[in-house]
Amino acid sequence: MITEEEAVLKVEPRQLDTLLHPNFDANALKTAENIATGLPASPGAAAGELYFTAHEAAAAGKAGKSVILLRDETTPEDIEGMDLARGILTARGGMTSHAAVVARGMGRPAVVGCGALIINEEKKTLTVGGKTYHEGDNVSLDGSTGKVYAGLVPTVETTVTGDFATLMGWADKARTLKVRTNADTPRDTQQAVDFGAEGIGLCRTEHMFFEASRVKAMREMILADNAEQRKAALNKILPVQQKDFEEMYIALDGRPMTVRYLDPPLHEFLPQESMTAEIAEIAKELNTTSEKIVEKIGQLHEFNPMMGHRGCRLAVTFPEIAEMQTRAVLQAALKVRKEKGIDVKPEIMIPLVGTVKELKFVKEIVLDTAEKIFSEQGEKIEFQVGTMIEIPRACVVADEIAKEAEFFSFGTNDLTQMTFGFSRDDAGKFLDAYYDNKILESDPFARLDQEGVGELVKMAVEKGRQGRPNIKLGICGEHGGDPSTVEFCHNVGLNYVSCSPFRVPIARLAAAHAAIKEKQAK
Amino acid sequence: MITEEEAVLKVEPRQLDTLLHPNFDANALKTAENIATGLPASPGAAAGELYFTAHEAAAAGKAGKSVILLRDETTPEDIEGMDLARGILTARGGMTSHAAVVARGMGRPAVVGCGALIINEEKKTLTVGGKTYHEGDNVSLDGSTGKVYAGLVPTVETTVTGDFATLMGWADKARTLKVRTNADTPRDTQQAVDFGAEGIGLCRTEHMFFEASRVKAMREMILADNAEQRKAALNKILPVQQKDFEEMYIALDGRPMTVRYLDPPLHEFLPQESMTAEIAEIAKELNTTSEKIVEKIGQLHEFNPMMGHRGCRLAVTFPEIAEMQTRAVLQAALKVRKEKGIDVKPEIMIPLVGTVKELKFVKEIVLDTAEKIFSEQGEKIEFQVGTMIEIPRACVVADEIAKEAEFFSFGTNDLTQMTFGFSRDDAGKFLDAYYDNKILESDPFARLDQEGVGELVKMAVEKGRQGRPNIKLGICGEHGGDPSTVEFCHNVGLNYVSCSPFRVPIARLAAAHAAIKEKQAK
Repeated sequence: MITEEEAVLKVEPRQLDTLLHPNFDANALKTAENIATGLPASPGAAAGELYFTAHEAAAAGKAGKSVILLRDETTPEDIEGMDLARGILTARGGMTSHAAVVARGMGRPAVVGCGALIINEEKKTLTVGGKTYHEGDNVSLDGSTGKVYAGLVPTVETTVTGDFATLMGWADKARTLKVRTNADTPRDTQQAVDFGAEGIGLCRTEHMFFEASRVKAMREMILADNAEQRKAALNKILPVQQKDFEEMYIALDGRPMTVRYLDPPLHEFLPQESMTAEIAEIAKELNTTSEKIVEKIGQLHEFNPMMGHRGCRLAVTFPEIAEMQTRAVLQAALKVRKEKGIDVKPEIMIPLVGTVKELKFVKEIVLDTAEKIFSEQGEKIEFQVGTMIEIPRACVVADEIAKEAEFFSFGTNDLTQMTFGFSRDDAGKFLDAYYDNKILESDPFARLDQEGVGELVKMAVEKGRQGRPNIKLGICGEHGGDPSTVEFCHNVGLNYVSCSPFRVPIARLAAAHAAIKEKQAK
Repeated sequence: MITEEEAVLKVEPRQLDTLLHPNFDANALKTAENIATGLPASPGAAAGELYFTAHEAAAAGKAGKSVILLRDETTPEDIEGMDLARGILTARGGMTSHAAVVARGMGRPAVVGCGALIINEEKKTLTVGGKTYHEGDNVSLDGSTGKVYAGLVPTVETTVTGDFATLMGWADKARTLKVRTNADTPRDTQQAVDFGAEGIGLCRTEHMFFEASRVKAMREMILADNAEQRKAALNKILPVQQKDFEEMYIALDGRPMTVRYLDPPLHEFLPQESMTAEIAEIAKELNTTSEKIVEKIGQLHEFNPMMGHRGCRLAVTFPEIAEMQTRAVLQAALKVRKEKGIDVKPEIMIPLVGTVKELKFVKEIVLDTAEKIFSEQGEKIEFQVGTMIEIPRACVVADEIAKEAEFFSFGTNDLTQMTFGFSRDDAGKFLDAYYDNKILESDPFARLDQEGVGELVKMAVEKGRQGRPNIKLGICGEHGGDPSTVEFCHNVGLNYVSCSPFRVPIARLAAAHAAIKEKQAK
C-alpha cells in the first residue's frame, strides 16, 4: 500500500500526453505504409482527406469531412482551417514554428518540417517517395512520432477511466498552484473546464478575428483614415466580440477570465502584397481600391514586426481599440450576470508593457470607459486591470509597474524571444547547430530557460510583490504546460499557470509533483 | 580667474556639435529659399547636386562632385553612396532610422523624415512645394536645424582654435574614462585619432564588404553549397580584410582596436527578391543562375532579422567565417608589427552572445586558428578575446560569460532594442505617440534609458567583475557619444566609451564633466 501522494508521484506528467490524445490502432499500424517522417510537433493521431489551403480545409471541415491540412508553412490567416482540420502537416518549420505552436495550443495532432514532402500549391499535388497525392486523397499522421502514412489508418479514442479521475483528485488535493487555460473559443473553454481548468489565463482576442466572416470589420478599421472611421468599424466588431465573451463567461460559470487586449501587428489582418487576387476581392468587399490596400500594406510593413507596432502600442496610438474592447468585456459581463446569474470575474490584461506610464495610459482608457458603461447601465461589476510581463524591461522595473497592475501574467514566449534575442519563427535556422554543438540542451520555447529567462521572472516576482504585496502572479506562455516549468513556477511562488486545454491535466499533475517534492524536501 | 576644472565645466559638451561641423554662411542663409523641413538627424551643413540612388551618388562622389544623396529611406546597401555624399536627405524614417544612425556615425550632415518630399525614383524627380527637381540640381541641407534649401548655400568651415585645444587638454587631465571611437576605415580612424580617440572600440567588419567591389566575394560565400566552397570564397576575402586591418593598425599607431566579427544577417549582402535586374547581373558575375540567387534569398528570408541568424550565430553555423576573420586580424597584426615596428593590440569581439557556451565555442575557433598562425609564422602576438553585451540574457548571466571574456563592450543599441522590444527601424511608427502622451521623455536610442537598460548594464558590470575581477568594460553603442550617457558610464565604472569620430571631443569633455562633478560631490 502506498499513500495518495506516493501514487501521484508515480505517474510522470508527460505520460498523460499520450493518454489524452487519440492513437492509431496498433494492429493497423503494422501494415500501414509510412511515406515520410517529420517532427512530432503536437501529439495524437489523425487521418483524413488532404487539403492544400486553409480556406478549403475549413470549408471541408464545416461540411463534416475529416481533414488533414497540408501547407509548406502556416500563417495566422490559416487559423480557421487549422482549427477545423483533424491534423496538420507542414513541409517546413521547426518545433517552434507557427504550425507547431498553434497546433499544440489547439490540441490538434501535427507533424511539421517534413522536408521530403514536395508541395505544389497551385496544382494541388503532394509528391513524396515518387508518388503523387491530390486533394481529397487519404493520409494519416501521428503527431507523437512524426510519422506520415498513406491512406486511412484507423484511430482508437483514448478512454479515461475512473482511476484517472481518482488520481487527478489526489493531485488536486496535493497542489497549491492553480491551473488555468489559454482559450479563445467557447468550445476550447468547455474542453479545458472538463479537463479541470480553474479559469482562463489567456484569451487572445485577436484569434477571434482571423475567421473569414469577421476579418472584414478589422480590415475596415485598419483602412480607416481617421479616428471617426475607425470607431465606426470598431462598432461593427463590438457586438461580435461581446457575444464571444458572453459565451465564454457562460462556459466558465464563475471562473475568472483574463482577456488580453489586441496584440498582433495590424498587417497580420491583411493579405501579403503579392496576393493580388485576394487584394482585389477585399477591395471590392470593402468598397475601396486595390491601390489603397496595397498602400496600407506598405505603410504597415515592418522590418521586425515582433518588436514593432503591436501590443499596448496599438492602444497608445489608437485608444479607440481599447475602448471597444473594454465595452465588449464589461457589457458581456453585466449581461451574463443579469441573464444567467453567473458571477463573472473579468481580468483585463494589457500586453507588451515595458514602462509603467504605458500601462497607466491604457488603464486610464479602460477605467474611463468602464465608468461610462456603469453609468449608462446603472450597475457596476468588479474587474481587475493587469499586465503581461513579456518585455525584459518590464522585469527590471516590475516594482513600478506593480503599482498600476493588479496582476502580472508572464508571457514567457515573448520574454524568451527578447531575452535571448531569438525570433521564434527564425531560430529554426540555427538552433539545430546549437543542439549539435551542445550550446543549448533544450528548446527554450518548450522548456523555460531557468538560468536566464527564469532569473528575470524571479526578479519580476520579487519586485512585483515589493510594489504591490497582494499582486496576483501567473504565467500564460506555452511553457505553462511543461512539467519542469510548472515546478519552477511553483518554486518561485506564482499563483497559477495557464496552458492549452489538452495540457491542463499535465499541469495539474506537475503542480502536485512540485508541491509534494517541496514538502518532502523540508 | 577660474580653475581649469571650472573652465571645463563652463562648456556644455553638446555645444561642440555645432563647433565641429561646417555651418551655412549666416548672410547667405537670410536669402536662401527654404523648400522643406525634416528632422535634424545629423548636425552640419551640406550643399551639392541631387542624386537619387546610392550607386550614382557614389560614382559622382568619386568623380569629385559635391553630392546630396536623396532616398525615401536608406538601407545597408547604400553605405558607400552615403559615405561619398556630402549630405543625406530622406523622405521617411525617424531620428533612429538607418539613415540617421549611419549619418551620425559618419559625421555626415543629414535631414530625415522630410515628409513633404515626393520622390519618383524611376523618373529621378523630386517634387516639393509644386516645383520639380532633377538629378544634378543643386540643393542644400542643414542637419542641425532640419531645413532644406533650393540651390547652393555657401558653407563656412569651422575653425578650431588653440583655445579649444587648451580646453580639451584640461578635460583630458580631469577625466578618468577613456574615449575610443567606432571606425571601420583608415580615414575614419585617422579622423578620430586627430580628435583624440584613444583606440577603436568598435570596428564593424561587415561595413568593409558593402562596397561594390568587395561584396562579390561575400556573395560567393553566401551562395556556396558547402564548407569547401565557402572556404574558397572566404580565401578571396581574407587578403582584402587583412589589408584593411593593416591600414587601420597603422593609423592607430599602437592604440588598441576592438574588431567585431561578422554580425548582420547574410541576406543584407544580397539584393531584394524583387530586384530582378540586379539579380541577373549578379548571377552573370558569379557564373550562376538568377533562380539560384532567388532561391537563396528565399532561404535567407527572416520574419525578424534583428533576432535571427546573425552575430555569433553565424560563427556557430559557419565556423570558417570566424577562422578567416581571425587570420585577417592576427596576420595583419604580425605584419604591421614586423614592418612598421608598431605595437599592435588586437581585441577580438564576438557579437550577440547570450550564453557562455556560445562564446566558448567561438573562442575555441579563434584560439585554434591563432595557434596555427603562430606556428606557421614562428612568432606570436598578444591579443584578447571578449564579447559584446547586447542581449538581455547576457546581462543576467554576465558572471558566467566573464569567465570566458577578457572584456565586455556594451552594445547598447541592440540591448535597447531587445530590452524594450523596440525595433529601431520600426519604432518611428509609434514613438511620436509616446512622446506626445509623455510616456517616454527622450529617444532611448539617443539617450540611454538608465532606469531599464541602464539597470541591466549595472547588473552586467557587477556580475562581470564577480566572474573576472580585472575585466575591461566599455560601451560601443551610439550612446557612447551622448553626454548624459557618458556620465552614466563614468558612474557605473566603465573603463571607456566608444563613439563616432565626430563625437570623440564631446565624449572627452563629457567624461571630464562626470569626473569633476563626482569629485565635487565628495
